[in-house]
Amino acid sequence: MFSINQLAEQAKKASLQVANLSDLEKRTTLNDMAIFLRYNRQSIITENKKDLNAAEENGLSPAMIDRLMLNDERIEDMASAIEQIANQDDPVGKIKSTKILDNGLIVNKVSIPLGVIAMIYESRPNVTADAAALCFKAGNSIILKGGKEAIHSNIAIGKILHQALSNNKIDTGAIGIVSDTDRKHMAELLTLNELVDLIIPRGGEGLIKYVSENSRIPVIQHFKGVCHLYIDEGADIEKSIDILVNGKVQRPGVCNALETLLVHESILAQYAEQIAVALESRAVKIHACDNSITHFNDATLATDEDYDREYLALEIAVRQVDSFDAAIQHIQQFSSNHTEVIVTNNKSNADEFVKRISSSVVMVNASSRFSDGGQLGLGAEIGISTSKLHAYGPMGAESLTTEKFVVLGDGQIRS
Amino acid sequence: MFSINQLAEQAKKASLQVANLSDLEKRTTLNDMAIFLRYNRQSIITENKKDLNAAEENGLSPAMIDRLMLNDERIEDMASAIEQIANQDDPVGKIKSTKILDNGLIVNKVSIPLGVIAMIYESRPNVTADAAALCFKAGNSIILKGGKEAIHSNIAIGKILHQALSNNKIDTGAIGIVSDTDRKHMAELLTLNELVDLIIPRGGEGLIKYVSENSRIPVIQHFKGVCHLYIDEGADIEKSIDILVNGKVQRPGVCNALETLLVHESILAQYAEQIAVALESRAVKIHACDNSITHFNDATLATDEDYDREYLALEIAVRQVDSFDAAIQHIQQFSSNHTEVIVTNNKSNADEFVKRISSSVVMVNASSRFSDGGQLGLGAEIGISTSKLHAYGPMGAESLTTEKFVVLGDGQIRS
Repeated sequence: MFSINQLAEQAKKASLQVANLSDLEKRTTLNDMAIFLRYNRQSIITENKKDLNAAEENGLSPAMIDRLMLNDERIEDMASAIEQIANQDDPVGKIKSTKILDNGLIVNKVSIPLGVIAMIYESRPNVTADAAALCFKAGNSIILKGGKEAIHSNIAIGKILHQALSNNKIDTGAIGIVSDTDRKHMAELLTLNELVDLIIPRGGEGLIKYVSENSRIPVIQHFKGVCHLYIDEGADIEKSIDILVNGKVQRPGVCNALETLLVHESILAQYAEQIAVALESRAVKIHACDNSITHFNDATLATDEDYDREYLALEIAVRQVDSFDAAIQHIQQFSSNHTEVIVTNNKSNADEFVKRISSSVVMVNASSRFSDGGQLGLGAEIGISTSKLHAYGPMGAESLTTEKFVVLGDGQIRS
Repeated sequence: MFSINQLAEQAKKASLQVANLSDLEKRTTLNDMAIFLRYNRQSIITENKKDLNAAEENGLSPAMIDRLMLNDERIEDMASAIEQIANQDDPVGKIKSTKILDNGLIVNKVSIPLGVIAMIYESRPNVTADAAALCFKAGNSIILKGGKEAIHSNIAIGKILHQALSNNKIDTGAIGIVSDTDRKHMAELLTLNELVDLIIPRGGEGLIKYVSENSRIPVIQHFKGVCHLYIDEGADIEKSIDILVNGKVQRPGVCNALETLLVHESILAQYAEQIAVALESRAVKIHACDNSITHFNDATLATDEDYDREYLALEIAVRQVDSFDAAIQHIQQFSSNHTEVIVTNNKSNADEFVKRISSSVVMVNASSRFSDGGQLGLGAEIGISTSKLHAYGPMGAESLTTEKFVVLGDGQIRS
């Protein structure tokens, strides 16, 4: 019988070993994971077929089935992501600050692993490899609780990761795979605050809400991404349209896609037709404010609910603003703390935008689609935090550490 | 009628102003707080008398009444703590890392305030001033919910802090004082996750448990401090006894006092009498393991419960260990993640102790009593986190910030 408590105890035990591995040991093990994934890709694909067959039987949408599907190319992507993580600097054991006090005490802050991280996720099996590799690089054990639709794929990947651990004499408890689809395991996992240090849910809003409300363990939340693009007075129109189209159209179903366009009235007065053509020629449905609606064919009038929505589709809200301040105020009201973009040629507005917008990623003259751990140079990401505690924005290996105080004395006592 | 929701909305609104104050504005305002506290000390003492009278009527313990009491000296301490915080470097707006990607994007991580912090605390009114000053220095609004036993003192201090804010044209919503002792405000506060970014409870274990289990907002936990001292083979015995006595006896009722002594068998064979005299002459009650109990007069046999207890009194558990590893294992089993100390002359054991012990403060040859924000050079502390998320150990102003990504481009889109 599968026991989640036992899995967590094994993870806790293994975490003491993993926390103290050298950077070289971690690199070697991660490189082995990549090699073994490539070598065993056929067996992964065979197990993945079982999940795909079940998905078809259960009538999952083509989009869901595509997310689930593994092929040679996708397995190669997993392996090379692990190699990138292997090659990063060791995030553990870094002296982050140091100070010598008047009494001679040396006070260092040193980065250490968090301990045991549990990841609860849906659908995409590559998360299994990415999350395991990031947690391992940061010296943590991980417990992986994937969705039941990917259970065969996840178990197959897990077995291969275990081979790499064993090959390097590392306790396989460091990567715990929940090999059972019973939903009660999730509820039980959320109560194990003596064994697990952090829960990261990744999936729909329902999953994240459930985990947040029921967990006795700290949770990193990634809620929706309502990303804004503001086109400032005097902005370059070609650049603006490129960034708008890239943000909305390239991959509308992801959290860093644009959901709202704010546009200065002077831009709209001059370039409304170009903006309308850019969106309409790509079949983007428009929810426009009463000041801009006349510029678009077939637009519907935008409501506050429209400004609050994550469309995840070829659909966008458009609002004309009469000033830079009005754009800031709109974002402050409707921001989901994910990613906001300004396109501007005005240096002082760019600086002011960066200063006043407190979202986790603030961009000047670049596409919101870059708001992603891989694109921002973190190698891979374990999630994007939209709550400000612990980590904010895309999270790589460094976000999976904390810092302890190391105090070195020669007999000091307090007077 | 007092409304906690309204107070939180005012704090949220003020947080937008406070987040963007310059370091000079924050220093000036904090220095005004210190000046005004000194100038108005008589009115604080008058209000504090009301709390002291009520405390006596309600039969509070002398220790509790002492914690509650304010006099000229304690108000001076409050004022000078604020001045120290004023003089610290601004923790906000620091570029923590920067990187230029191949596509020309500049990716900075910049420290920003958390937003709105709520502090729920018991008894000591100086927390009102310390917490408000630390949060303000880090660009946050704060909501202060003190205990009903200190309500008059807290309101009086709050009024003076508001004068300093007004004097500098800062929205007084930035320091919200819950001016009502209705317990339902606490329950309501814990649900305001749209307005409040962090809850810090400070007080007994019951308070922290209640807040952790009922909050929809992230909580920084400070549970008990079961601090260990390990005296290693070959350690200097005078130094060891100084650190033992300072840790256990100087102020037994605080969380950085020692609760367990682990001592290598070779030390005990040679110096048992000195250790026994040091503790017994100071009336420290001893719970000793079966291997060490014969060295002490009137010791009781230590159980696992004794090793797990925070005595907060002149009482200590003593255990003989036959190796360095056995000491590490004891600490790993019973640690509360607060503070652990080794006294040793062996450099490699010191390094190994620092590496393998993952408590928030790890000390070599120094008293556990230094495990305190003020003593470690943070100016003051808002608490000591024993959970690893976000912050770990004593928390100063820097722990009240987070980091956002600032991405600067010149039109890049994702291919």
